[in-house]
Amino acid sequence: MPDIDQYIESNASRFEEELCEFLRIPSISADAGHKEDMIRAAEWVAGQFRRLKLSPEIIPTAGHPMVYAETPTVSGAPTALVYGHYDVQPVEPLDKWISPPFEPTRREGNIVARGATDDKGQLLTHLKGLEAWMEVEGRLPINLKYIIEGEEEVGSAGLEKFIAEHSDKLACNCVVISDGSQFAPGMPAVTRGLRGIAYYELRVNGPNRDLHSGSFGGSVTNPINALASILNGLIDKDGRVTLPGFYDDVVELTDRERKELAALPFDEKEYFAQVGVDGAIGEAGYTALERRWARPTFDCCGIWGGYQGEGAKTVLPSTAAAKISFRLVPNQNPAKISAALRTRLAELTPPGVKIEVIDFHGAPGVLIPPDSPYVEAAARAIEYAFGRRPVFTREGGSIPIVTTFHQKLGADALLIGWGQDDDNTHSPNEKFSLADFHRGIRASAKLWEELAQIQL
Amino acid sequence: MPDIDQYIESNASRFEEELCEFLRIPSISADAGHKEDMIRAAEWVAGQFRRLKLSPEIIPTAGHPMVYAETPTVSGAPTALVYGHYDVQPVEPLDKWISPPFEPTRREGNIVARGATDDKGQLLTHLKGLEAWMEVEGRLPINLKYIIEGEEEVGSAGLEKFIAEHSDKLACNCVVISDGSQFAPGMPAVTRGLRGIAYYELRVNGPNRDLHSGSFGGSVTNPINALASILNGLIDKDGRVTLPGFYDDVVELTDRERKELAALPFDEKEYFAQVGVDGAIGEAGYTALERRWARPTFDCCGIWGGYQGEGAKTVLPSTAAAKISFRLVPNQNPAKISAALRTRLAELTPPGVKIEVIDFHGAPGVLIPPDSPYVEAAARAIEYAFGRRPVFTREGGSIPIVTTFHQKLGADALLIGWGQDDDNTHSPNEKFSLADFHRGIRASAKLWEELAQIQL
Repeated sequence: MPDIDQYIESNASRFEEELCEFLRIPSISADAGHKEDMIRAAEWVAGQFRRLKLSPEIIPTAGHPMVYAETPTVSGAPTALVYGHYDVQPVEPLDKWISPPFEPTRREGNIVARGATDDKGQLLTHLKGLEAWMEVEGRLPINLKYIIEGEEEVGSAGLEKFIAEHSDKLACNCVVISDGSQFAPGMPAVTRGLRGIAYYELRVNGPNRDLHSGSFGGSVTNPINALASILNGLIDKDGRVTLPGFYDDVVELTDRERKELAALPFDEKEYFAQVGVDGAIGEAGYTALERRWARPTFDCCGIWGGYQGEGAKTVLPSTAAAKISFRLVPNQNPAKISAALRTRLAELTPPGVKIEVIDFHGAPGVLIPPDSPYVEAAARAIEYAFGRRPVFTREGGSIPIVTTFHQKLGADALLIGWGQDDDNTHSPNEKFSLADFHRGIRASAKLWEELAQIQL
Repeated sequence: MPDIDQYIESNASRFEEELCEFLRIPSISADAGHKEDMIRAAEWVAGQFRRLKLSPEIIPTAGHPMVYAETPTVSGAPTALVYGHYDVQPVEPLDKWISPPFEPTRREGNIVARGATDDKGQLLTHLKGLEAWMEVEGRLPINLKYIIEGEEEVGSAGLEKFIAEHSDKLACNCVVISDGSQFAPGMPAVTRGLRGIAYYELRVNGPNRDLHSGSFGGSVTNPINALASILNGLIDKDGRVTLPGFYDDVVELTDRERKELAALPFDEKEYFAQVGVDGAIGEAGYTALERRWARPTFDCCGIWGGYQGEGAKTVLPSTAAAKISFRLVPNQNPAKISAALRTRLAELTPPGVKIEVIDFHGAPGVLIPPDSPYVEAAARAIEYAFGRRPVFTREGGSIPIVTTFHQKLGADALLIGWGQDDDNTHSPNEKFSLADFHRGIRASAKLWEELAQIQL
């Protein structure tokens, strides 16, 4: 692609100027006062397609509009759906910013501004990868669809609804998302798996009113004691979840992936030091990285009951409750987990209290097969632009929209983030490396070519 | 005591009028707006002694004043210290009162007003038991000291300080306290034992900030999970506390007391139904009543950590904490318990979190020996006035001032409450049975005679 590369190189400073232009729009989706800015940002994105003679659609939602565009049909070639978002997080605390959040500033090779890495800068790489092809070749070697939303930071309600109702319009072979990080500086990554989740509120109801812990303690089941016992009973001494059948559907790590993970420059001591601890417990037989990315877990996300104020109050409270979550790995089914949880809780609940379980969201994990030709195409494109083959990682969290793409479109997502862990995403002084911005554009343009090689 | 009984009978309606007069003073110690009423109430109590030609002292404190009085010395006779309080609880919610809280109203044989049972009505029985002797005999057969405070409902700080500094002034052989309840209507009781307490805040500190439970869950010790595991580890499967040596100093229930407790009209099913549960767990081998009154326990009084709001938040919190209390039985030493707790917590704390223990109050339990001549004297006086021998009970809670009397004065307390469990103490429509008021006066007068029989 010498001509395309040449185009990208020649237009580098204009690309940066356009990035700054995009970043100057304060498109804070959470703030109703920025409604007009949201429309401006959507229009700005649409303008990117219009200059290429494509016909973008601005799709209204109950919240902020989405921008959709597609390239002319290339029969027999794969279709990639590029996803990104033009909305950004609020900027508070404002006094922590070295330069104003919507006045993009170059500093130490980075562009500093709200949205720099999340996601305007990363999104723009795929608009410029498109532009390079269109301007140089006048066409794309594959079918590209773009769906750019303005509600990612507030829950993607509009897009979720649109996908449910228009899965045909978005039909594709793979989804391309650059809205995350490389594994480390100079170490680009393809995220091959996400964990799922099953999240509940567990309420333990005991006596019909708060009792005096002196007068009643010992004779009446204490809901907090009971809750502690129940929660503790959900994990065994080896750190394994005790729900019946919990591990039945777990896709075990392959030897190959364990080796890949072990080869990553991940230092457990340094990792623990960064979060301020000197060790950890977890499922026996797995490294911290494996437990974090590829093993299911049980975590309490919140707990409350009785007296939480200053000093001492001798109360035996009538209720206690916890927010509990199971992180699931690919192939575990949230509905089965819910049923197993209820079975297990029935075993663990002592006399004198009754439990109540409220289901919140459940989402299965996502795992792209290691031999996916799409992943291989992305790896080659990244190697081309970044000068080294990407590492293959997973992510311990869930990305709801990726799960939706997976479930509704049957499409695997290529999660190829160009950011860095220390980009201050959602924090003051958000930044994005300009070198990575340009490498990202080159990788994007190359990706279209690599995907075109895939035989459907 | 025919003359004394006659005096009490003849003056019954005046006693009721005086009770109403006392109850009309809104002596709410917690409310700074009632400071003058507190002084009026203290003066009213002092007036009771002055009319008997005794010389009460009004003792100022940093809060509300105390009233002290003593009878002329009777050499060789025992000394009883009568304790009571003239302050009352706040009256809110006011709209739940059928009649205004400070307009005493007779209803169904009761006097209804704030302070009726707690403690003005009960306290007054011992002032009238004194009056009867002074008016009829011109003297008491024993040495009586009265200490009446105005801060019981707000922590007794002034009295605690006074006892520490003036234990000689309050020196006595026993303390007489009527500030509680009979076992059931028509079933007066002497409370022979109180549990002690050791109360702590336990903090579990993990990572240096809240983490995303998806990105980190499984790889970092979750402080709430750890807290649940620690709390659960403080009790074994038989409901016994696992602190090393916890039961070493426990005074076991004697066969006699177990029989006495078993003979009480205490129906476990009814007890559980009253608090709205259908059973309970607790230390194996003991009845609910034994566990409640005479066995040490572990209770969480509060717990918190992470997200407690609506819906779901996927957080692995940096800290979690609980308020925990051990109810102690007589002879257990709070300081030893604190040391044992620390030893046990060190065993239970998993890697990846550090714990912090904050000591709140510790107080040993109190147990009056079953063969105490003071208890026997009280039992005879109660039988005389109430027509049946009292049952011997314990109380699961602690009464700090009783512990202080025990520790600082070396005096056992005769806890002879004239109230009933349904007297609405601290609640709207507080009441006190007028029949019990009069029986209490008669029992009080008889008690002085019975105590006079004791050979020192």
